[in-house]
Amino acid sequence: MSQIFDEVLILGGGLIGSSIARAAKQFVAAKKVHIWDSNKNVRTKLLALGLCDDDCDNNGYNAKTADLVILAVPPGKIAQLGLEIAPDMKKGAILSDVGSIKKPICNMLDSAMPQGVEFIGAHPIAGTEQSGPEAGFARLFENRWCVLTPENDDSEQARKLSQFWQKLGSNIAFMSAERHDLVLATTSHLPHLIAYALVGTATDMETVTKNEVVKYSAGGFRDFTRIAASDPIMWRDVFLGNKDAVLEVLGRYIEDLTALKRAIRWEDGEFLMQEFVRTRDIRKKIIDAGQDSDKPNFGRDNSKD
Amino acid sequence: MSQIFDEVLILGGGLIGSSIARAAKQFVAAKKVHIWDSNKNVRTKLLALGLCDDDCDNNGYNAKTADLVILAVPPGKIAQLGLEIAPDMKKGAILSDVGSIKKPICNMLDSAMPQGVEFIGAHPIAGTEQSGPEAGFARLFENRWCVLTPENDDSEQARKLSQFWQKLGSNIAFMSAERHDLVLATTSHLPHLIAYALVGTATDMETVTKNEVVKYSAGGFRDFTRIAASDPIMWRDVFLGNKDAVLEVLGRYIEDLTALKRAIRWEDGEFLMQEFVRTRDIRKKIIDAGQDSDKPNFGRDNSKD
Repeated sequence: MSQIFDEVLILGGGLIGSSIARAAKQFVAAKKVHIWDSNKNVRTKLLALGLCDDDCDNNGYNAKTADLVILAVPPGKIAQLGLEIAPDMKKGAILSDVGSIKKPICNMLDSAMPQGVEFIGAHPIAGTEQSGPEAGFARLFENRWCVLTPENDDSEQARKLSQFWQKLGSNIAFMSAERHDLVLATTSHLPHLIAYALVGTATDMETVTKNEVVKYSAGGFRDFTRIAASDPIMWRDVFLGNKDAVLEVLGRYIEDLTALKRAIRWEDGEFLMQEFVRTRDIRKKIIDAGQDSDKPNFGRDNSKD
Repeated sequence: MSQIFDEVLILGGGLIGSSIARAAKQFVAAKKVHIWDSNKNVRTKLLALGLCDDDCDNNGYNAKTADLVILAVPPGKIAQLGLEIAPDMKKGAILSDVGSIKKPICNMLDSAMPQGVEFIGAHPIAGTEQSGPEAGFARLFENRWCVLTPENDDSEQARKLSQFWQKLGSNIAFMSAERHDLVLATTSHLPHLIAYALVGTATDMETVTKNEVVKYSAGGFRDFTRIAASDPIMWRDVFLGNKDAVLEVLGRYIEDLTALKRAIRWEDGEFLMQEFVRTRDIRKKIIDAGQDSDKPNFGRDNSKD
């Protein structure tokens, strides 16, 4: 497979945007890759990292010649930026994004494209707890799923965008924006909210010092602090933008947690066992699907003998 | 430092017991290390792993000559086994354990020791999501904290047990059994309960298939499945044995989560931001304290460029 696009423009040089730039260059997914960020400091870093060409300067970006423009800004800013940039884009070009929520973005942009420009929502399910251009790396998307939000790849543009993400190492899934937001509310948004809440609760316990929380974190707490170290702006936007689905799964989760609380209060060991035994199976499936490491403790601790 | 004890007997050959046996041999913490398990299959595995001496057979164990006996069975069985074994132990010997809860165990055993035998509660805050003798490894305790539940090291026995765990690589903390159970309710027990509940909620969502939960787990969910793959029997015993402290922190947690839920419902982005920004600090402290990896995604994914 040769390059998929002649010219790609990425707007937003954070973890995801800079990783796309790295991957697109390294895996030769486009002939030219431009990246731009509205923040001067980020632009300076992108330049130092060798991710910018000469046009990564204060003169702004040029969307006119791009075959693909990817909006890699926080979810709350994607739609607005898309509306601004679309009128400049050439016929046949694709506008896309990387937002963790899809329905509000697609609702806004799908109908607002000028003739000949197509908006295709995308969400690479990949990332780390780190932010900024230095945090990015080319293999971030390898073996991760990238969801594209047309329901299928009927259009030529959808097929090209799909090929681009495959070049970057991703597996591709097509689904509606509504379905995406429902599924991700469960597999991503709720876990993050739970982690943020736990870190809050633990640091607020007046009877336990912060120092103790840090010292004894290997008992389980440390796992949650990784997720809760994720970009706060992005996550605020996700919860506000996927309000209905998040409230639905969060309501269910609080019910389930309350049932466990009740079982502890009434010392119902059988109920606890029943809930605890059914969880190993899904871990195994995730490992078998190549979506997590099979090493104990994610392989992060002392190695085995 | 030469060997701390002449003869150590470990009862229970699972992840923790077998790791103690490995570490005590490898780091020469005792002249003789015996390990025994009531389960015949486990004994066979211990023998195959070279962790048993000749006495690891169906004839049972001999507690009479041991200077230190470590009870490495599930928390709910520790006190009973301690009561059975103590009368056989010699004068000057130490009975200890590895239970994740301390108050019910110490309450039962402290007062039940025959003259000349001392019970000292211990909890190495180390482990993986795997179970059984094959899952153990010698460096499991390296740089992890081991809590001993006398409030200080005033006694000769407490100092010796402390030296033993230091030989195994641990840092030592002394605190009361009550305090231990309160601190660990926050840093370990609550995180595990939260993770078990999430895996339950996610797998019960009728609108999202199990296959989707597995495929898109890299969005955050997979982190929780590791913790929720931990030994169900052990965790049932922990929640029943530390009921009061767990109910207290769980109550607070549900309050905090409900406050986030309300903020999402009322689209209070400021409140969300305020809660999300204060969590990065504690992650950094945990990494600085050597209690977690500083690599993104715990270092488990594709390496950086």
